Amino acid sequence: MPAEPLAFSRATCSIAATLELVGEKWTLLVVREAFFGLRRFDDILAMVGCARGVLSARLATLVDNGILLRVPYRDPGARPRYEYALTPKGRELYPILIALMQWGDRWSAPEGKPPIVLRHLDCDAEVRAEIRCATGHGPLAPRETFARPGPGASELAQARHASREQNRVR
Amino acid sequence: MPAEPLAFSRATCSIAATLELVGEKWTLLVVREAFFGLRRFDDILAMVGCARGVLSARLATLVDNGILLRVPYRDPGARPRYEYALTPKGRELYPILIALMQWGDRWSAPEGKPPIVLRHLDCDAEVRAEIRCATGHGPLAPRETFARPGPGASELAQARHASREQNRVR
Repeated sequence: MPAEPLAFSRATCSIAATLELVGEKWTLLVVREAFFGLRRFDDILAMVGCARGVLSARLATLVDNGILLRVPYRDPGARPRYEYALTPKGRELYPILIALMQWGDRWSAPEGKPPIVLRHLDCDAEVRAEIRCATGHGPLAPRETFARPGPGASELAQARHASREQNRVR
Repeated sequence: MPAEPLAFSRATCSIAATLELVGEKWTLLVVREAFFGLRRFDDILAMVGCARGVLSARLATLVDNGILLRVPYRDPGARPRYEYALTPKGRELYPILIALMQWGDRWSAPEGKPPIVLRHLDCDAEVRAEIRCATGHGPLAPRETFARPGPGASELAQARHASREQNRVR
């Protein structure tokens, strides 16, 4: 362990901020159904398997936070209802779901057999989340990366944590 | 929406399985500290900011599930204690954290200024989670991918969901 690990404030940490919005139980499973094409309350309910009230609450939070859009529809002879579609902000949650899925495939799937595989539409090769740098190097292991205070960090933090070796991810 | 969205059983879904292990509040923030080099209870506590009892419970779950390893240490004159280090299984959670962080950076960071940036140790370029296929195409948008029942799905599911266009991710 270095003398001083990356010890500046986590108050504005973006991991915590994301979990604040989508970290509640069931929320990411509701989002999963949106990616799989389910748009209606009862269809989502059947697949997610939570209580009706929980699903209502999660959908409301997702709509309030701009992750899902409520779209009116009306079946013949029925009263008007709403269905739910991913917004661009919601669609950007895809890497989170893929990363969760590939870890579960590797460490939790019964007999190591994943129930669902994701593939590239064009070439049919398996799809995965990879850590890469903007220059194109990768996939990278954690130890090939380091953390640095960003533009949202305090000046003190920026001064104290300038060394890349010190801030290497373990 | 296609006539029949990807409607086979989610009972063994790897997203749900992963959330079962690391989806509780605080757990991924504890894992974050392990990546940032914090190994000791009080150091982690100070950064995560949860209650002591919650941290004890989360650390125990992470150790029980093979994500963290308890390593004994002893400061001079003090009683023996434990510190915590990521296992290889734990280290593979990195793409999940990166994906959560980049979404938060984009959609939640105050004034769009991320508090922490992750960079490639060798070339200093920014690090990110990308969706790519095994052949190397990408970064891919959700709509460039499709889902197919995997080896862990029922035969019925495999027969009913053979069409890639039908199972396109939204």
